[in-house]
Amino acid sequence: LFRYLLRWIPLAGLTGVMAGSASALLLWSLNVATAIRESHRWLIALLPVAGLAVGLMYRYLGTSVEAGNNLILDEVHDPRRTIPVRMTPLILIGTFITHLFGGSAGREGTAIQTGASLADQLARPFRLSAEERRVLLMCGISAGFASVFGTPLAGAIFGLEVLMVGSVSYGALVPCIVAAFAGDLTTRAWHVTHTVYRVSAVPQISARGVLLAAVAGAAFGLVAMAFAHTVHAIAARCKAWIAYAPLRPFLGGALVAAAVFAFGTTKYIGLGIPGILASFDGQQPAYDWAAKFLFTVVTLGAGFKGGEVTPLFFIGATLGNALAYVLPLPPSLLAGMGFVAVFAGAANTPVASTLMAVELFGAEAGAYAGIACVFSYLFSGNSGIYRSQRAGIAKV
Amino acid sequence: LFRYLLRWIPLAGLTGVMAGSASALLLWSLNVATAIRESHRWLIALLPVAGLAVGLMYRYLGTSVEAGNNLILDEVHDPRRTIPVRMTPLILIGTFITHLFGGSAGREGTAIQTGASLADQLARPFRLSAEERRVLLMCGISAGFASVFGTPLAGAIFGLEVLMVGSVSYGALVPCIVAAFAGDLTTRAWHVTHTVYRVSAVPQISARGVLLAAVAGAAFGLVAMAFAHTVHAIAARCKAWIAYAPLRPFLGGALVAAAVFAFGTTKYIGLGIPGILASFDGQQPAYDWAAKFLFTVVTLGAGFKGGEVTPLFFIGATLGNALAYVLPLPPSLLAGMGFVAVFAGAANTPVASTLMAVELFGAEAGAYAGIACVFSYLFSGNSGIYRSQRAGIAKV
Repeated sequence: LFRYLLRWIPLAGLTGVMAGSASALLLWSLNVATAIRESHRWLIALLPVAGLAVGLMYRYLGTSVEAGNNLILDEVHDPRRTIPVRMTPLILIGTFITHLFGGSAGREGTAIQTGASLADQLARPFRLSAEERRVLLMCGISAGFASVFGTPLAGAIFGLEVLMVGSVSYGALVPCIVAAFAGDLTTRAWHVTHTVYRVSAVPQISARGVLLAAVAGAAFGLVAMAFAHTVHAIAARCKAWIAYAPLRPFLGGALVAAAVFAFGTTKYIGLGIPGILASFDGQQPAYDWAAKFLFTVVTLGAGFKGGEVTPLFFIGATLGNALAYVLPLPPSLLAGMGFVAVFAGAANTPVASTLMAVELFGAEAGAYAGIACVFSYLFSGNSGIYRSQRAGIAKV
Repeated sequence: LFRYLLRWIPLAGLTGVMAGSASALLLWSLNVATAIRESHRWLIALLPVAGLAVGLMYRYLGTSVEAGNNLILDEVHDPRRTIPVRMTPLILIGTFITHLFGGSAGREGTAIQTGASLADQLARPFRLSAEERRVLLMCGISAGFASVFGTPLAGAIFGLEVLMVGSVSYGALVPCIVAAFAGDLTTRAWHVTHTVYRVSAVPQISARGVLLAAVAGAAFGLVAMAFAHTVHAIAARCKAWIAYAPLRPFLGGALVAAAVFAFGTTKYIGLGIPGILASFDGQQPAYDWAAKFLFTVVTLGAGFKGGEVTPLFFIGATLGNALAYVLPLPPSLLAGMGFVAVFAGAANTPVASTLMAVELFGAEAGAYAGIACVFSYLFSGNSGIYRSQRAGIAKV
């Protein structure tokens, strides 16, 4: 036991420090990218060119790491060879470009890839076995997730829960929680702060509240399923129709840029933090979630880099807000529930998402969010945004 | 999917209503028992006779349900025959007697047994398959746990997590969360209230805080392991030395009653709620946890009825409080961490225990409690208080 701790506390801690530092760099760079883009909106016209640049970069430098999150999940399930360290700079640059020129994407995919690929570099010097490498990669996932969102408990469980649909194994629980807290503390030590979301009203839970949360959860789950299917379908179509890979984000970027100028709003591109915040703060237009959905599936399906999760937060929060038109629950509570529950359904991680709700919105909102996450998980089908997730226990 | 929901939402809801009502009756009866005992302390002198009565009751009416929680876990793992409905009245009466005459025991075992045995009565009328019966029993466990402690999220996960050490399957997630909320709401609808524990100070999490929480967690886990081993060892010795089962609680009761009068305090018998509350409220004697430990292992090892968990809360909260003599964290925070973490180690349920901390103490304390629960889980060995828990993934 003590040998185990002497080995894993430093390894997991080191992973956390590396992943947390990468997340700090990522979050800082995205703040810079967003600020520059919002004050120079003509940059969005260059999104097709930016897409071409990202496509070329991966075509000539990054074929070995193009599979991204799926590569990491595959290595956890079936360890073969060290993840190339180049994954880290490529995904950081790719994500920065996506956000600078106005693609709609997230950051958790980036944080997971930097966390896991940096962690994996420790495997050789420390002579880890294949089984130990699996644990190390899970630490990288946990630390990346925890640090990019500032939610260490959710990050720790996410690293275990994301591997399989419907079953969780605690083999790496201790290393993952150490890595998650180390990652989160490291990002904060770099003076990077996280957005604070406030659920302003939480009614006392009741049978009616449970039922409403379940109904909302079902809606969140169906949208999560639609999102995962659509991203995958667009990616597959792009591959079938456009043989030359760098051309895909060029055309996708043209589509997104055209839509931005046609609608005259930058609300649905980038991370969309202002839109998420607005959904916690009074009733918003009911179509916000659908618009963000379309911008994001085109951006990601076409091959831009970045995560899926922050857009899912946006889609969920605005969909929750819109549900307040028909469900008698406060808009800000429904926004908080959707924030975590669409993600729960799309990533098949109901417990990590519930913990995230608690860490972001507090314990009272957690009960509603927990029900919504579980029902979203049930309604989101047996696959999700991560193709390399394995099937564990069928949901029904 | 809709057939699944049409089947399971009513079944799980009904399970919750039955389990929640039983928990309300249990909590009310324990309040009565505690009030009578505290105003008529001479009753404690009759504890040996009470033990004999409980022993005789189970000897002549309850051999089929004597295995208690382990019987339920065995039926979930390997469904054979319906759990006799008599489990419910016997365990309720047995627990009432234990508390009325001053044994040191808990209530979660009772709530789980009433919840699961009542739920199981639905299996035949609804013609459930063996697999569906498993889900129904898990609902009963979740609803019993959720309702007796007022923690629905923890209850939902507990019903899944308690089955195996180190691995969790989400097959019954939706029914369990429905049953847990239905159970909790039912108990509250009976106007039964739960004790409120307040963690008064939670410092901002830091690397030092994570380390201290891990060290405290290790202590909690070692005590959890010692508790489980000692209860089992005493029970085994009693069986080997005293052939006639009803004589065991008679002698155990004599020992406990003698100790109460020798030490002149009722602090360590019954549920011990005042002792738990005190540990959240300033520094207490450092030996409280050890005294409660001894009273409880004798009471339960000798064959009295009742749960292990509330005494584990007491042991954990007072041990946490005592650790404040050596660890620079606030006593009330350490009490809250110990409250859930000794239980996490003894029951091998780190995630349910973390959720319980969040539900009882709030989200800020949850981070410390989560670390403590995970490290307690790691240090508590590969078995626990529930003998019929199966081994999943080894901890190290």
